[in-house]
Amino acid sequence: MLEKFFNPDSVAVIGASRKEGKVGRVVFDNIRKGFKGDIYPVNPSADEIDGIMCYPSITDTPPVDLAIIVVPARAVPFILDECGAKGVRNVVVISAGFKESGASELERECVEIAKRHGMRMLGPNCLGFINTYSDLNASFSGDMAIRGNIGLASQSGALCTAILDWANIRGIGFSIFISLGNKADISENDIITVLSEDKKTRVILLYLEGIKDGRKFMDIASLHKKPIVVVKAGRTLSGAKAVSSHTGTLAGSDVAYDSAFNQSGVIRAASLEEMFDYGLAFSCQKMPSDNGVAIVTNAGGAGVLAADACESFGIKIASFESKTIEELRSSLPDAASIYNPVDVLGDALPDRYRTAINAVINDSNVHGIIVLASPQAMTDMKGIAEILVETNRVSPKPILASLMGGRQTIEGERVLSMNHIPNYPFPERAARAMHAMITYANITKRTYTQPPEFDVERESVRHILNRSREEGIRRLGVECLPILERYGIPIADSVIVSNRDQAVKAADGIGYPVVIKVISSEISHKTDVGGVRTASGAQELRVVYEDMVQRIHRYMPDAGIKGVLIQKMLRNGKEVILGMNRDPQFGPVLMFGLGGISVEVLKDVTFRIAPITERDAEDMIKEIRAYPMLLGIRGERPSDIHAVKESLLRFSRLCMDFPEITEIDINPMLVFEHGCVAVDTRLTLEERI
Amino acid sequence: MLEKFFNPDSVAVIGASRKEGKVGRVVFDNIRKGFKGDIYPVNPSADEIDGIMCYPSITDTPPVDLAIIVVPARAVPFILDECGAKGVRNVVVISAGFKESGASELERECVEIAKRHGMRMLGPNCLGFINTYSDLNASFSGDMAIRGNIGLASQSGALCTAILDWANIRGIGFSIFISLGNKADISENDIITVLSEDKKTRVILLYLEGIKDGRKFMDIASLHKKPIVVVKAGRTLSGAKAVSSHTGTLAGSDVAYDSAFNQSGVIRAASLEEMFDYGLAFSCQKMPSDNGVAIVTNAGGAGVLAADACESFGIKIASFESKTIEELRSSLPDAASIYNPVDVLGDALPDRYRTAINAVINDSNVHGIIVLASPQAMTDMKGIAEILVETNRVSPKPILASLMGGRQTIEGERVLSMNHIPNYPFPERAARAMHAMITYANITKRTYTQPPEFDVERESVRHILNRSREEGIRRLGVECLPILERYGIPIADSVIVSNRDQAVKAADGIGYPVVIKVISSEISHKTDVGGVRTASGAQELRVVYEDMVQRIHRYMPDAGIKGVLIQKMLRNGKEVILGMNRDPQFGPVLMFGLGGISVEVLKDVTFRIAPITERDAEDMIKEIRAYPMLLGIRGERPSDIHAVKESLLRFSRLCMDFPEITEIDINPMLVFEHGCVAVDTRLTLEERI
Repeated sequence: MLEKFFNPDSVAVIGASRKEGKVGRVVFDNIRKGFKGDIYPVNPSADEIDGIMCYPSITDTPPVDLAIIVVPARAVPFILDECGAKGVRNVVVISAGFKESGASELERECVEIAKRHGMRMLGPNCLGFINTYSDLNASFSGDMAIRGNIGLASQSGALCTAILDWANIRGIGFSIFISLGNKADISENDIITVLSEDKKTRVILLYLEGIKDGRKFMDIASLHKKPIVVVKAGRTLSGAKAVSSHTGTLAGSDVAYDSAFNQSGVIRAASLEEMFDYGLAFSCQKMPSDNGVAIVTNAGGAGVLAADACESFGIKIASFESKTIEELRSSLPDAASIYNPVDVLGDALPDRYRTAINAVINDSNVHGIIVLASPQAMTDMKGIAEILVETNRVSPKPILASLMGGRQTIEGERVLSMNHIPNYPFPERAARAMHAMITYANITKRTYTQPPEFDVERESVRHILNRSREEGIRRLGVECLPILERYGIPIADSVIVSNRDQAVKAADGIGYPVVIKVISSEISHKTDVGGVRTASGAQELRVVYEDMVQRIHRYMPDAGIKGVLIQKMLRNGKEVILGMNRDPQFGPVLMFGLGGISVEVLKDVTFRIAPITERDAEDMIKEIRAYPMLLGIRGERPSDIHAVKESLLRFSRLCMDFPEITEIDINPMLVFEHGCVAVDTRLTLEERI
Repeated sequence: MLEKFFNPDSVAVIGASRKEGKVGRVVFDNIRKGFKGDIYPVNPSADEIDGIMCYPSITDTPPVDLAIIVVPARAVPFILDECGAKGVRNVVVISAGFKESGASELERECVEIAKRHGMRMLGPNCLGFINTYSDLNASFSGDMAIRGNIGLASQSGALCTAILDWANIRGIGFSIFISLGNKADISENDIITVLSEDKKTRVILLYLEGIKDGRKFMDIASLHKKPIVVVKAGRTLSGAKAVSSHTGTLAGSDVAYDSAFNQSGVIRAASLEEMFDYGLAFSCQKMPSDNGVAIVTNAGGAGVLAADACESFGIKIASFESKTIEELRSSLPDAASIYNPVDVLGDALPDRYRTAINAVINDSNVHGIIVLASPQAMTDMKGIAEILVETNRVSPKPILASLMGGRQTIEGERVLSMNHIPNYPFPERAARAMHAMITYANITKRTYTQPPEFDVERESVRHILNRSREEGIRRLGVECLPILERYGIPIADSVIVSNRDQAVKAADGIGYPVVIKVISSEISHKTDVGGVRTASGAQELRVVYEDMVQRIHRYMPDAGIKGVLIQKMLRNGKEVILGMNRDPQFGPVLMFGLGGISVEVLKDVTFRIAPITERDAEDMIKEIRAYPMLLGIRGERPSDIHAVKESLLRFSRLCMDFPEITEIDINPMLVFEHGCVAVDTRLTLEERI
């Protein structure tokens, strides 16, 4: 739907100016420089600009596909309305002076006008965009981008100009280059769709400080068929503070962003440099079909650095098949290393590189090649580059290079760049880019399944929650274990009682020993106030019950006791914790961890955005560092991981079904060799508005 | 002592050749290009080379400070001997064909000859070295280095050429640039001394694949007064394998390297690029006096990226004093961000940068400044660079820059480079370099104390160990708890007995309940074979004792039972583990961790090379992730950390005193609110040769 937006046949510049250097003039000139479509400058106080006839208003121009608006912020609503009336469907608002400087109302007004007319709007407060394939520089960046197949969108206009300047000097090309501005209408979600459908784009790079609609982002990103690499700024507290003072964006938690990117197959880069290192590889190389690389080098040290980097990123240094080793042995000098990394030695001429590369590239354990060269006495960098070009032409496996040096590598680098082989100044960066490619290869192999469906008693839970809210109760404790049960999560045998005799009767039914837990909305840490006790027989239970109730009355006179829960005492299970917090961007973020010190002290936990699939649930359990505890150590029997997995999936369902639950945890859940049970839980309901 | 080596007044080139392109000719020509001292080519079959008189032998030349040897490997011993006889004290053996290609014997021979004559030797199998301040290129690298104050040594010759070529094109200068080759004699340890004493050198960069003498390295590095940055290749399994196939170096464990670098104040870089990013900052900037930076930017996004990077590296984003904020508020436009990061806005001219920098640089919470600039419509990169130069001239605080872009930053970059202000292409790299500087600032504040002395019964332990070795026993278990006791490490009350009656008598003395542990060198996991039992009274003890001994006889007929240990049963302590493994490079590597799953499953442990100081012991305890467990969670009383610290120090002493102990652990040691006790231990003695 946005296709004409970024590929218009005709463009109007509203606010085109006669005065050199003014933004309205720069934009107009930039468009004129290359664009072959129709261009209509609009300015009520000019007849012509640089000899081109000016229109007093957009109403007077022929029909246009795209209008670029460069008028003072205050005038934008009126102009938008005119555009809408005229039937313009696509507008870029370059003008600043909106939300970023406190004028949120003005921005909202623009969005409403655009919506009313069915218009899409990029900006406001943006640089515009560049489409290199239609030679359209619809921005006020003086420099045009080079043609290429990287699609880029940035939430920071200043980074756009820096990136463009940086890329141009390095010969890095773009298909469409977009400054997102305030994202009042068009956001990263639209951009991913546009760039996914754009035939010239092979990889999508995004610099984001926030995401407008997290759930939609995940849905769209999961469906994409191109690699998406994101730098999400504001990942630390200091960064998030800086983002919010910069854009006013409400920061979601970084844990949620990480989970969302991971679940939707988006690759997160830690820096702009990393983003471009990846972008370069994706933009021109084939995808590796699996994990496993060969390293070919003329310098042992460089090979070691690459091997170190590969292993630390999780890349397998392929073990060669015996035929490969034989081939290398028979064709390389004796002193060469024929195992991986292959060291063709310092005196290697390009031919020796060819021999080595041809041998390893056919090895079925090799899925990508990293070629390193250091300038030594005989080294012919250009010749080596040409060998890579030759191999790259026929090989289905990706090749990344690191020609190391300065003056001596310039010619080789040029050959590589012209022939779409990425070159990195140091081996470690080549390895990191290869790792991103392997990560993406794994992403493409994912099958996106639906979360499983369960029979649950949804209406019954709704009834419980509604009653609580009607009673004005927002925090529920152990008394809401039945909610879990209604969603098929096993809970410990328990009965709620309101006096001693009922307690004994309940315990008789359950069987001793029992745990006695106070129920009170005023008490959030029951153990701290002696609100959790045990009894191994009826007599003890009577004493303990009375004592507990009295003490609480005495020490917490304001705590209303709504009852007491009598629960079967369970032993020997492993404690796990299931939790959920609602993130402003992404909704329910599920957490899983082992109980005890694992969560509290070691923060050994894992996160996913709900709803989760079976694979997600499995991965959550396996990702925690303490996972071996569940498998059983020192001869223990393994815990019932399948039962935990099912509980996680049902927990996810519960969180999805009731958005009014803002927080919930099951802590602890006990896992046994067979089965698991929830022993205690807490839940917070949204405040009624 | 090596001063004349790298600053000779006269140089002989033995193996100087008439033939262009031969190494012997290249080296000769390289030296002639700039060196002002005397140069004597030596070649028995040439009268002159390029018009300079040739000597048939080193015997015939005037006295020389340094001889460069470029003859076939086989001839090197003879030449060395001649040099020695002549009184030459310093030689560089460029020739290859030694240990690296299997000729270890030949290399050993050379070392012996050198030693006999009191000569120092660089190489063999090296590129040579460059001293830019005496214009001496004593290497076969065609390119001369630029003058600067980075001292560099690399164990890989191929990386030397790559680095030199890379640095030259970027204007990065060196004082002395050394190719270490096989390190048969001169090693990193000598180089650190040389470069520390060299007045032109401000920072020492090392690329190492191994360290020749780990203990000496630590001693020398601890004493250094200049920043040392190391890339230690072979940090992963794949990398270490590649190193060993490349150099034949025996790899110590990477954990030991990490500890050694940390303890001796050496900064480890993860890649060559990182090493140079740090080197650049150290080579020209002042040191920050504390942790705390100000970020000044004309682009909000860049500020966010820098803040994210700073926080993730552990750099504090300084909170400005109120006078700073007032100053910024009164002098910057309303829309500017006056908090840290300071955003001077996209239209900032250099003057506005000056205002902001001057305000923050006087803030007492600011110890370093990172200045960012993106090329926007009004941006004057050169002007901004000039402001930085001006500030840098008077400010005692380090300034790092990131002028972001390409063509538009070239002039600004040139200004910065000429005026010794490091510029990084992306904000994240500037932040990382600032972090290295803060790390080094902390290193310089360290006071290197001696490990504390303790009264220990050393002779008594020596006696126990000697007896074991005489009996051919290499593995000791719980029976060697007394060894710990003799070093002042508290142990649980225990008595070794050899029959039931003795056991009961011992238990009566100790007090019930007791733990009963079998003593047998054949049983390494006592619990697994039922070799650890408990008894709460005399009768139970008799039964259990008999049952244990019989079962072991039945199921492990080959296990000789040397006795049974009766030990007081202790409760409620926290389990910790103290361990030691001997590393081939660095000797005793101490380990500390919490017992239970912490060590076994979560690998939550910390390491130091012994001997350790009080600070080391304290840091070891505090560094583990589970440290809060020792402080007490959920209202628990804290454990006696002081007692653990003292045990660690005494344990370190024990490991130092007895090099024949190759491995020892105390597992568990129980820590209480007051005191701690060793409950079990295992020890392995070196095989007698």
